[in-house]
Amino acid sequence: MSTTLKSIVEENTTIAGRRFDLFFMALIILSLVSYAVETIPDLPEPVIELLNYAEIAIVTLFTVEYGLRIYVASRKWRFATSFYGLIDLIAILPFYLALVLPALAGTGLDLRMLRMIRLLRLFRAFKVVRYSKAIRLFAAAFQIAKAELVLFFITACMLLYIAAAGIHFFESEAQPQAFSSWFSSLWWAVVTLTTVGYGDVYPITLGGRIFTFFLLLIGIGTIAVPSGIIASALGRARAQQEESK
Amino acid sequence: MSTTLKSIVEENTTIAGRRFDLFFMALIILSLVSYAVETIPDLPEPVIELLNYAEIAIVTLFTVEYGLRIYVASRKWRFATSFYGLIDLIAILPFYLALVLPALAGTGLDLRMLRMIRLLRLFRAFKVVRYSKAIRLFAAAFQIAKAELVLFFITACMLLYIAAAGIHFFESEAQPQAFSSWFSSLWWAVVTLTTVGYGDVYPITLGGRIFTFFLLLIGIGTIAVPSGIIASALGRARAQQEESK
Amino acid sequence: MSTTLKSIVEENTTIAGRRFDLFFMALIILSLVSYAVETIPDLPEPVIELLNYAEIAIVTLFTVEYGLRIYVASRKWRFATSFYGLIDLIAILPFYLALVLPALAGTGLDLRMLRMIRLLRLFRAFKVVRYSKAIRLFAAAFQIAKAELVLFFITACMLLYIAAAGIHFFESEAQPQAFSSWFSSLWWAVVTLTTVGYGDVYPITLGGRIFTFFLLLIGIGTIAVPSGIIASALGRARAQQEESK
Amino acid sequence: MSTTLKSIVEENTTIAGRRFDLFFMALIILSLVSYAVETIPDLPEPVIELLNYAEIAIVTLFTVEYGLRIYVASRKWRFATSFYGLIDLIAILPFYLALVLPALAGTGLDLRMLRMIRLLRLFRAFKVVRYSKAIRLFAAAFQIAKAELVLFFITACMLLYIAAAGIHFFESEAQPQAFSSWFSSLWWAVVTLTTVGYGDVYPITLGGRIFTFFLLLIGIGTIAVPSGIIASALGRARAQQEESK
Repeated sequence: MSTTLKSIVEENTTIAGRRFDLFFMALIILSLVSYAVETIPDLPEPVIELLNYAEIAIVTLFTVEYGLRIYVASRKWRFATSFYGLIDLIAILPFYLALVLPALAGTGLDLRMLRMIRLLRLFRAFKVVRYSKAIRLFAAAFQIAKAELVLFFITACMLLYIAAAGIHFFESEAQPQAFSSWFSSLWWAVVTLTTVGYGDVYPITLGGRIFTFFLLLIGIGTIAVPSGIIASALGRARAQQEESK
Repeated sequence: MSTTLKSIVEENTTIAGRRFDLFFMALIILSLVSYAVETIPDLPEPVIELLNYAEIAIVTLFTVEYGLRIYVASRKWRFATSFYGLIDLIAILPFYLALVLPALAGTGLDLRMLRMIRLLRLFRAFKVVRYSKAIRLFAAAFQIAKAELVLFFITACMLLYIAAAGIHFFESEAQPQAFSSWFSSLWWAVVTLTTVGYGDVYPITLGGRIFTFFLLLIGIGTIAVPSGIIASALGRARAQQEESK
Repeated sequence: MSTTLKSIVEENTTIAGRRFDLFFMALIILSLVSYAVETIPDLPEPVIELLNYAEIAIVTLFTVEYGLRIYVASRKWRFATSFYGLIDLIAILPFYLALVLPALAGTGLDLRMLRMIRLLRLFRAFKVVRYSKAIRLFAAAFQIAKAELVLFFITACMLLYIAAAGIHFFESEAQPQAFSSWFSSLWWAVVTLTTVGYGDVYPITLGGRIFTFFLLLIGIGTIAVPSGIIASALGRARAQQEESK
Repeated sequence: MSTTLKSIVEENTTIAGRRFDLFFMALIILSLVSYAVETIPDLPEPVIELLNYAEIAIVTLFTVEYGLRIYVASRKWRFATSFYGLIDLIAILPFYLALVLPALAGTGLDLRMLRMIRLLRLFRAFKVVRYSKAIRLFAAAFQIAKAELVLFFITACMLLYIAAAGIHFFESEAQPQAFSSWFSSLWWAVVTLTTVGYGDVYPITLGGRIFTFFLLLIGIGTIAVPSGIIASALGRARAQQEESK
């Protein structure tokens, strides 16, 4: 019977195993929705109570699941210290900590944030064959393009540094509030080079605008280069996958 | 004669068939333009009347066309339940429903919205050889990259979830209006990660800005990764198409 | 001697020919700069006079060049009706028309706008070997991806139509000014789907925001798909170019 | 002993050499951080003093390093005039110039800006094998796509010229402040075509909006085309690298 239980908990090839997985995936999503609903201010009392009961039920079920996974694991310690084992633990721990240490609730340290870790449990859903193939493809592409991506990332950071220093030089006098220091100018640099452009800060001096002009001409690469790296690495990874078949 | 009629209605290889197609394509576009013009507020009375007459004429012609298509179809029921058959029906149905049930007009249920379905009828225009080849290429690329696109989409949704929860954590106190709950923070997350950046909501606290900084560094992938997936899948699909020749 | 003149005017392989080309390229750029400077309001009188003299000098030189090109052309009529021949003519014609028909100056028809056509003359500069190779590559890639680009363009237009109709449905009541009709909603749709996001118009209702949410999830493709098409077509065109060598 | 010193300073294959490199990399980053902190207004006196001492220490160490690099170089003059040699000099020169010519401090010529040159010293870090392979890949891709990138860049500049002239034509009357001349309209053109869209300037007339509509439809290429060029060039460069193995 333990073998059957093991196959239900750990595999998704049997109907019962798939149902087990689907049930806990639905539970994770329910838990995420409940977390989101809790953030709404001035919720009516009954809703808050309902959410509390839901949280207790969810944590109970997660605890049972965690126990089961430990129970059926061939090498228990190895599972407990694995990526998924740790996530499963962190997903339920905050609840028990808050029970044991009620004093923590008032310290501003928001343990509820840790519940977001449950999100990572969703990755288990990708164990299905077709997705694990796609994950391997991404992993292979990442391996191929690792050095290039790091190089791009460092160059982008340098560009951000220069952009912030440059715009601070041109705008700090005209807009001492928005571009008060290199750090506040960095905010502008990020928002501009990622082309988000909220419009909360923008250059108004002639020098600042000319600087932005040239920065943006270069900055198009901020989006074009990673696209290109990923496209060519994925193409290469796909070709390797075809060959190995 | 029925064979001739059939070839005119269903095919676009003869001159008459092509004219038939062009006429109804022009009619669809006219119908879409008329829908757009109707939304202009305070239209003069004669224009409204003209639009009403145009709508009656368009629906009449669409009804005739629908009848013809049913009439010439070898397997009538199959056509009626096919994608194009259903679209053709939905494109004219609202008009007749509004006639039969005038009470509906006042219920706020805007049947006119359904007229937009006519847009989908334009897809018939892509039956031409060169476009159907391009559609097959897109379909093949989509088939190749399906799992990767789903994976990206789910990861993007997770990122949106985390982004909304994170910015809510940092900004809800400083801007209780704009970031009142996870749901209103999600609006910011979407507008920011797609790099639209309207500027109606943006972080103002130091914590929120640092969080956005790191989010955007990761978020460049939101645009770069799908580009890369599509580019490599299209490249692969094109190569397969060349080989099969 | 006519052969020498012909080689100077039409070719860029000799030193004299290259100097001839460089001189007129500099003149085009000078003419574009002068056009830009003229738009500055409240220019001092001497600057306006200088610009007028510059314009007369530029047009005179362009006229001489046009005459030379006609003179050395083997088939004069063919040159006069060719792409470059027509551009050369349109680049000088407005000046003479304004002289002959001074009445035109006051009619609001701004003939000066036509001077921008001179920009197209810069394309002659790309006749150099390495650029003409790059142009051939782009042309080949465009040929390969023509149907796909048209398909994408039509689908994008449909998406814009639906986006404008949808946001008008959700927002016209809450913001009757900004989303008064389908046409004003189209402005929002373009600014949003291209991720420009000025922030002059944005949805404020819950329905409008949820609609925008889903629109943007699809809309990432607006930028990712053309990138992918161009990347794979360029890759294919480059491979063909390598093979033909 | 000089051989050992040489290997420590110039190479990073020994442990001592790697530590030497890491130490000076940390120093560069410290120097950049200190530059950024200095821009914060109203710093308390002790912090300013600390930063001054840090600057003296950093420059001293950089000077020692520069001396060492000259000392161990086989061909001293060649190193001094090389890319890295010049950067090393410019990184310390402003400090000594300010000492020698204290009068410069008040002339508005901000020698401190030159300290940003130190950023370029970070490139030395990329001498490691895996990064130099990635750099070679980028260099090869750039070599392959050089003409195409230049062509794209020139076409983009032409598009910017036309965009600025066009929007000035449509909007200068309605918004004489924001679109006063071609030059101020150029600012709008850059911010729009790079899809940053701050929202400080945007068209409000019907003509201006229709012009922007068509401009943006073309303008998607501003981001899609360079992505495509880089992707296909990287793909080609990677294939060449594989072949040569």
